[in-house]
Amino acid sequence: MTLRVLPAAVALVLGSAATAAETTHIPDSAVKLAADVRERALKDTTAYDFVADLTTQIGPRLAGSANDRRAVDWTVARFKALGFDKVWTEPVTYPRWVRRSEHGAIVAPYAQPLSLLALGNSPATPKGGVRAEVVAFKDFTALQAADAARVRGKIVYVGYHMKPFKDGHDYGPATAGRTAGPAFAAKLGAVAFVLRSAGSDSDRLPHTGVTSFAPGAKQIPAAAVSNADADLLERELAGGKPVTLALDLDCGIDGQYTGANVIAQLDGSGKPDEIVEIGGHLDSWDPGTGAIDDGAGVATAVGAARVIAGLPQRPKRSIRVVAFANEEAGMFGGKAYSTAHKAEVAKHVLASEADFGSGPIWRLSTQVKPEALGAIDQMMQALAPLGVERGASHAHGGDFGSFGEEGEALVDLTEDGTHYFDWHHTANDTLDKIDPKDLAHNVAVYAVFAYLAAQADGDFGSAPGAFPAQKE
Amino acid sequence: MTLRVLPAAVALVLGSAATAAETTHIPDSAVKLAADVRERALKDTTAYDFVADLTTQIGPRLAGSANDRRAVDWTVARFKALGFDKVWTEPVTYPRWVRRSEHGAIVAPYAQPLSLLALGNSPATPKGGVRAEVVAFKDFTALQAADAARVRGKIVYVGYHMKPFKDGHDYGPATAGRTAGPAFAAKLGAVAFVLRSAGSDSDRLPHTGVTSFAPGAKQIPAAAVSNADADLLERELAGGKPVTLALDLDCGIDGQYTGANVIAQLDGSGKPDEIVEIGGHLDSWDPGTGAIDDGAGVATAVGAARVIAGLPQRPKRSIRVVAFANEEAGMFGGKAYSTAHKAEVAKHVLASEADFGSGPIWRLSTQVKPEALGAIDQMMQALAPLGVERGASHAHGGDFGSFGEEGEALVDLTEDGTHYFDWHHTANDTLDKIDPKDLAHNVAVYAVFAYLAAQADGDFGSAPGAFPAQKE
Repeated sequence: MTLRVLPAAVALVLGSAATAAETTHIPDSAVKLAADVRERALKDTTAYDFVADLTTQIGPRLAGSANDRRAVDWTVARFKALGFDKVWTEPVTYPRWVRRSEHGAIVAPYAQPLSLLALGNSPATPKGGVRAEVVAFKDFTALQAADAARVRGKIVYVGYHMKPFKDGHDYGPATAGRTAGPAFAAKLGAVAFVLRSAGSDSDRLPHTGVTSFAPGAKQIPAAAVSNADADLLERELAGGKPVTLALDLDCGIDGQYTGANVIAQLDGSGKPDEIVEIGGHLDSWDPGTGAIDDGAGVATAVGAARVIAGLPQRPKRSIRVVAFANEEAGMFGGKAYSTAHKAEVAKHVLASEADFGSGPIWRLSTQVKPEALGAIDQMMQALAPLGVERGASHAHGGDFGSFGEEGEALVDLTEDGTHYFDWHHTANDTLDKIDPKDLAHNVAVYAVFAYLAAQADGDFGSAPGAFPAQKE
Repeated sequence: MTLRVLPAAVALVLGSAATAAETTHIPDSAVKLAADVRERALKDTTAYDFVADLTTQIGPRLAGSANDRRAVDWTVARFKALGFDKVWTEPVTYPRWVRRSEHGAIVAPYAQPLSLLALGNSPATPKGGVRAEVVAFKDFTALQAADAARVRGKIVYVGYHMKPFKDGHDYGPATAGRTAGPAFAAKLGAVAFVLRSAGSDSDRLPHTGVTSFAPGAKQIPAAAVSNADADLLERELAGGKPVTLALDLDCGIDGQYTGANVIAQLDGSGKPDEIVEIGGHLDSWDPGTGAIDDGAGVATAVGAARVIAGLPQRPKRSIRVVAFANEEAGMFGGKAYSTAHKAEVAKHVLASEADFGSGPIWRLSTQVKPEALGAIDQMMQALAPLGVERGASHAHGGDFGSFGEEGEALVDLTEDGTHYFDWHHTANDTLDKIDPKDLAHNVAVYAVFAYLAAQADGDFGSAPGAFPAQKE
């Protein structure tokens, strides 16, 4: 999750300048029926069954792995079995990163094994591993201010202590060190990089996640230690003696791979070429079974579509579920989807991705034209019994964010993420972390949202270049 | 922890028959000074420093490992540095069990890696591992009722779902399968044994612990999977298709080893040959750093003794801290201590071991002569500001239990164990699980208890064979 905050007024003006002045309105009959959609969704078990079966029958789905391919086949089969009108895949090509093994330890002054995971895109350590003294920084900003002489030949440790929040806003500072830290440390001459996990728990389970090196830039091996291990390392560092680590990571890029976005559609009854999109990402990190990140998101979208399919009448617009490929290494699925469909952006009416666990949704934020804000108010009325508040006039869009940069209107439906970062990207991302009632709540919000968007008279502002602020 | 409950009345009668009819009383001056002891203890950091340093500078302390020996040396040095009057070790010999590596997976119908740990005393799997169909039982009782024909050639799975309680009473049923399950399954012809962790968490961190085979009995490899993995296995089993597991455990008994109980004493000012004992066990399981089990227990005793050492005057009796060897594989340290000292049982006035984490102590239970119950009432008054309630007239004694069987009077001071079994015997047993304030509270309870026991006029009933009920 990356948080980009734009003052509401600026977003309104920019939106206004870029879109036609048609006022959007949802028919009263649709708003009335939304209450029925909501109640059906709260009782529907399609979503929970989906994520239970996905995590049990497939499990971890590292992009480019054998399980990633199995998950695509499994999801195609499940979408067909659920009776969608159309089910297809679209190719997504990316560099495949492979994790083979990883070990690490504090070797001096007090030997301790370390529970760690290599970061995605990390290269391997040289044969026999790497062993060097640690130089520690409290966060990425401190590393950025470091003198290269202090860092050269050392293992850099960045120890940002991430805190839990409902909106997860501490993930940004925590991942600054993860995404850019290794490349920065490499430039200063470090031999490896160790991160205090970007997680709000104290379990001895490290949080993996992606790091990034610019093309041609120097790369160094990078791993995250669990927060309990980070405490241990910090206590040894606090003792004042030089601290030496040993790391042995076998991982790295193994060529290009072509995976797939898996897509299912309920055709609309009136304007089937206009599309409301909901979705999540199908890939996951590998230590857990990808339950909260992001089996729950795909399941929420599938569940919502199924509830709508069960209504006496199809809504006017088509409802599309997108299960994106390889979000984790850099939203490759979202970018491929945007590239494939950008010529039709005006027909992609409104989109929302669920990718923040399965806590109850509490906030709705938007990237829509000003003339559609009345329709959003109507949605808010229908969502009020589910406890959803109005957020900012700015939406991030997750995997739909790339399409949003091309001009698609977006909605963010924010889950309560207080516990999300306790489990995210760890072996603890397992089915038991999903409360079936919370998941049904998410399905209800998505079903109401998608149904009303599909029934609205008028659009939400999707047009080529409609939201230039998104590209800032 | 094993819980043996005896009706209070029976214990009283048995105690009464076995001991002299001297009424024990604590001088009012001592009860008054106990308030000062309590307040000093709540501010003292000796215990937290002890467990922080032990877990940082040594870490895991599997009985018989190189770290076990380091921990003995470290503890001797620390006891000396803390200024005890006497510090010594006493030998403890036991079979050394070694963990080298362990891997496991569900291989059919849906392949999934399993997070597991071999159980202590488990033999290794044959070279290349073992692969067999699973036969599942909901608890040990169900396994005991099983037809051998269903079990032969299979891997037995026992899936007791342990729940959290303040007094930890669900650990008994959960460990029935762990301690006796593998031997029972072996007798029925099973090829291996897998346990749902005896733990109340849902983390993907398995709980190890000891299993037991009678001399000469058939042994099979045995491991515990984490509760999240157990859920996964149970979901695959619920699907109705045969479930096949693969296990590869490299572990087993590697000869005899002689470790040590580490003992420190504050000599009494009046009756130095009469001893009040407090302690914990120094060994730990190996996945964590042995913070709550039982670094906290040894630390509590050390902290309490230090507070007493800081008083203007030494109490009449000696206060002894015992850091026991190899509790985890079967209380070897406690048995050796009892054997070494049983001739002097009457001089060992009263003992209590801390071995249930560092949650606040809320209950005091006793194995004392009836004539000492008035003195216990006096202790309860001094402990009331710390929130301690009176428990049953029966005490377990932990590592002092063997000595209790010989006739030593015992007190159990029970911590709030609601979260103890979330972390116990897992990689999550790390320092962050100890709240320094709770630990200081434990130190205060132990300091008040030990001080008042050391100042009491009259004994608590220790005598050879004084508590025959303990042997039931």
